[in-house]
Amino acid sequence: MSTENLEKMRHSCAHLMATAIQKLYPEAKFGIGPVIENGFYYDIEIPNVSLSENELPKITKQMKRLIKDAIDFKKEEMSIEDAIKLFSDLKQTYKVELLKDLKEKGTTKMDDSEAEVLPDKSSKITIYKTGEFVDLCRGPHVDNTKEIKLAFKLDRLAGAYWRGSEKNPMLTRIYGLAFVEEKELEDYLAMMEEAKKRDHRKLGKEMELFHIDDMVGKGLPLWLPKGTIIKDEIEKYAKEMESKYGYLRVTTPHLAKKELFETSGHLPYYKDDMYPAMEMDDGTYYLKAMNCPHHHIIYGARPHSYRELPMRLAEYGTVYRNELSGTLAGLLRVRMLSMNDAHIYCRKDQIKDEFKSVLALNMEEFKTFNLNDYWFRLSKWSPDHTDKYINEPANWEYSENIIKEVLNEMKVKFVEVEDEAAFYGPKLDVQFKSIIGREETMSTIQLDFAAKSRFKLHYVDNEGNENNEVFVIHRAPLSTHERFLAFLLETYAGVFPTWLSPVQISLLPVGADHKDYCHELASKFKAQGFRVEVDDANETVSNKIRKAVGQKIPYMLVIGDKEIESDKLNIRLRGTDELLEITEAEFIDRVKEEINNRKDK
Amino acid sequence: MSTENLEKMRHSCAHLMATAIQKLYPEAKFGIGPVIENGFYYDIEIPNVSLSENELPKITKQMKRLIKDAIDFKKEEMSIEDAIKLFSDLKQTYKVELLKDLKEKGTTKMDDSEAEVLPDKSSKITIYKTGEFVDLCRGPHVDNTKEIKLAFKLDRLAGAYWRGSEKNPMLTRIYGLAFVEEKELEDYLAMMEEAKKRDHRKLGKEMELFHIDDMVGKGLPLWLPKGTIIKDEIEKYAKEMESKYGYLRVTTPHLAKKELFETSGHLPYYKDDMYPAMEMDDGTYYLKAMNCPHHHIIYGARPHSYRELPMRLAEYGTVYRNELSGTLAGLLRVRMLSMNDAHIYCRKDQIKDEFKSVLALNMEEFKTFNLNDYWFRLSKWSPDHTDKYINEPANWEYSENIIKEVLNEMKVKFVEVEDEAAFYGPKLDVQFKSIIGREETMSTIQLDFAAKSRFKLHYVDNEGNENNEVFVIHRAPLSTHERFLAFLLETYAGVFPTWLSPVQISLLPVGADHKDYCHELASKFKAQGFRVEVDDANETVSNKIRKAVGQKIPYMLVIGDKEIESDKLNIRLRGTDELLEITEAEFIDRVKEEINNRKDK
Repeated sequence: MSTENLEKMRHSCAHLMATAIQKLYPEAKFGIGPVIENGFYYDIEIPNVSLSENELPKITKQMKRLIKDAIDFKKEEMSIEDAIKLFSDLKQTYKVELLKDLKEKGTTKMDDSEAEVLPDKSSKITIYKTGEFVDLCRGPHVDNTKEIKLAFKLDRLAGAYWRGSEKNPMLTRIYGLAFVEEKELEDYLAMMEEAKKRDHRKLGKEMELFHIDDMVGKGLPLWLPKGTIIKDEIEKYAKEMESKYGYLRVTTPHLAKKELFETSGHLPYYKDDMYPAMEMDDGTYYLKAMNCPHHHIIYGARPHSYRELPMRLAEYGTVYRNELSGTLAGLLRVRMLSMNDAHIYCRKDQIKDEFKSVLALNMEEFKTFNLNDYWFRLSKWSPDHTDKYINEPANWEYSENIIKEVLNEMKVKFVEVEDEAAFYGPKLDVQFKSIIGREETMSTIQLDFAAKSRFKLHYVDNEGNENNEVFVIHRAPLSTHERFLAFLLETYAGVFPTWLSPVQISLLPVGADHKDYCHELASKFKAQGFRVEVDDANETVSNKIRKAVGQKIPYMLVIGDKEIESDKLNIRLRGTDELLEITEAEFIDRVKEEINNRKDK
Repeated sequence: MSTENLEKMRHSCAHLMATAIQKLYPEAKFGIGPVIENGFYYDIEIPNVSLSENELPKITKQMKRLIKDAIDFKKEEMSIEDAIKLFSDLKQTYKVELLKDLKEKGTTKMDDSEAEVLPDKSSKITIYKTGEFVDLCRGPHVDNTKEIKLAFKLDRLAGAYWRGSEKNPMLTRIYGLAFVEEKELEDYLAMMEEAKKRDHRKLGKEMELFHIDDMVGKGLPLWLPKGTIIKDEIEKYAKEMESKYGYLRVTTPHLAKKELFETSGHLPYYKDDMYPAMEMDDGTYYLKAMNCPHHHIIYGARPHSYRELPMRLAEYGTVYRNELSGTLAGLLRVRMLSMNDAHIYCRKDQIKDEFKSVLALNMEEFKTFNLNDYWFRLSKWSPDHTDKYINEPANWEYSENIIKEVLNEMKVKFVEVEDEAAFYGPKLDVQFKSIIGREETMSTIQLDFAAKSRFKLHYVDNEGNENNEVFVIHRAPLSTHERFLAFLLETYAGVFPTWLSPVQISLLPVGADHKDYCHELASKFKAQGFRVEVDDANETVSNKIRKAVGQKIPYMLVIGDKEIESDKLNIRLRGTDELLEITEAEFIDRVKEEINNRKDK
């Protein structure tokens, strides 16, 4: 089915639902009912009736009957005055309000939502009738309800202010899902069910990983002890990797004078995304939105010989972006971003090797996290739109070719897109398919031709001359800590590999007599560097087991008389009913190997 | 000699210098000449003469002659009008300006410096005459130059705007040192020489540890790769220690809504030290000046049982303080402070053990850094000034006694000071004597009775009741990263122990033929986790040695033909002429042990 056809069907489905509701509740007043992703909704008000999800089956049944009844969608045109009269007679006050706006302002638009538009005052408007139900609507629609051949489901209710303003009455919004095939609907419902279970906000709260507080502010999560362990393990790993790949670490301040951001170009071009200025006694300061300007200052702080390049400066930096508060959601969009940023300063003849090395590092890291479903997306300039891009055609040609060579040599999946590069150079995005089917950009490798002239970056070549062609590569393989944790929570459904688990071993004494032994055992494990917890609360063992399962702890040991007497440990493995009976030494070796190799299982 | 007597001698010495200068340069005009710590200065202007340090011996010689000449200090009183006439005749325009101010405003005060004050218009003013030199001066002075029995030295010159304003002419300030004993002067000069060598700004630049940049701003140092290594090693160590002492790590955002800082009391009482407010679309935000409010939010994010306490929350946090730009100096005073902060939440019956544990951790850390010259300073409340302190007399008595018990039990040196506690509880400072004799507070352990009510901190006691007596201990043993690095640089004179050294081993190939061998050796050392550098620049070996010595690298290996053939390594130890001849394996063991045990030598 074509997209237009599907849209038409979904829109007709919304009218169908409204028709059904009007049949069941003749007093119903209707707001608007547009098509949305995966279906449709309609905002309604039924005086003296408070709709709940319990009513949805009844409405669904009525919709199905209306399809069987094969009712026509009748289109009529009329003057706006006639339409106002018609809807007034029908007591559809919301429609009347829309029509009056249309008459006075030529549009029903109030915010970003779709709107009816009246080209000029004498234009006719269109209405659609389906049985008793009449709607102000441009269409198109199917000709008859029997043509609606969608697998649909009335999904949920929500409150919605009329025209999005809290000054207006609250209507009831009924969401419907609608797909071409029954299978699609089922898959979508299953995915939503899964997404709900894997929601990082839900898991983050249950697992005590982070906390968002009204007094601190949205988009500013506080990392709780268990979340901090995961963050610190990721940092430790990323630092080890970067040490292996020859990076140097630096630490730069979180703010700087406006002069720095004028030089970098952030202030003229990026100001809206930055936090407000702070006036100090010696100038105007801004929180940084990116780490690059500070790193450029470090590169420029002393002269460099050609032999010192490439210089790879890495930092677990925090950057600050003034996102609108309405867009902030859990860890996915925050106002303070922590990321393992790095900038590579290299000669032109080193771009290829450096790109290759960055790719290799990215891929090695993804593998460690068992993230395998990704591909690359190369955004190139367009020689036809040279005004959009820095004017260095030779560098564009050279570097784009070189990046393609790298991608081919490394045999990775990639797509190329024209005319989507940044102003200052080609970029390579790493695209991931999330476990619930969402495509997202995990990280970006960005070549930068502009920094060298903005910050006068140079090196002394092998003949002692100053060379100004210092190329910069920006990269942050693991996205931000915040987005990456959200992604991992969703991907793992909270079941972190042992090396990332905040608690790796949980010891559950059956009774008070078994506590001492548990603490002894815990000391032995702690001495190995394992993260161990003894749950010695005065609760039933089954309660303790339930808690440990909820916390998704990899290894759980219930300790009673029998276990104390045995010369083997009795270990419950996470996610299975399997009991492992091995000696203490064997267990220690197993866990140690798992942690040291950062194995997934 | 009494302090007043020493002051009088030093002041007379300033007049003596002025008298000498006037004899040598009759055109000289004099500004002011006060006593300062360790001596005195005088601001002067000699038309058409540009004084340099070369002239100081000549002036000194003249001063000594004047002492031998036994000239009287003659005091005279006169009306202000007569004084104006006298100094006008002498063409001492600066003195005349002072006198006119005195006449009009009753004071010569312009800024914070000492000032002459005229009680009322009819008051007499005092002048002192020494030979030809006449000064407006309250005295007192010695009666005769021969009484000046100080060991003095004209130390240095500096430019100084007349009366501290850049709108006025620049005078030449001549500083003099003056002590009772020759030995004191010598010691002071030696200490200054040492301080200059140990100046953290000088060492930090030479060793490439940090960089301060005009475009970023003063008080916002950028940590270069080598400085970051030291910082990271300190962090790693502190984290290990805190893991051992049972702390949990958290990470909190760098800013928060004003509501948080109103609750904490920072906004009403500490606003001037905070950065300016930032208006966002959902409220007013501030950068945090302290980590405690965020930690209190974490404590309060869920209920706690009495069994969970003490809860020790630690964070390598950054805090932001709006210091005046004029007060910022290197790393000693900065605007963004990084520190290993922690807050301990405990019950009243746990205060003693927690204080003891904090003290033990502090002392263990100091020992690792080989810092042994410190004592404690307990600041208590005053029952006579209850208005200055939170009104919980029982808690004051209880906690002060308990802290004293801890100090006694731990057998540490401490002093007690009354009426110097913070508003919200007693504090214990750790006082250090720096290697050049400066006393400074390295860290503070602070008990806090106020947080519990401000943030409604509570726990559930063993009978299931809510208890609101949650005590908070604030502590940060290693000061801020910035101040601590400055302190270590000064203490070690840049000679860091091996575990902290940015480069631990330097390999110096004698010729091009020896480079490969050096790189092979370097790989072996790197595999051990050692930080190694091969200096394969095309320079002479003596030049390379000079550089490695300048970088204060613990181990240096010069590699030529002989060394390649030998089955032993030839190692130059830092700071000695000693050559160590041991096998590779022995060397690796030695370095490994030194690093793992964080040994000082």
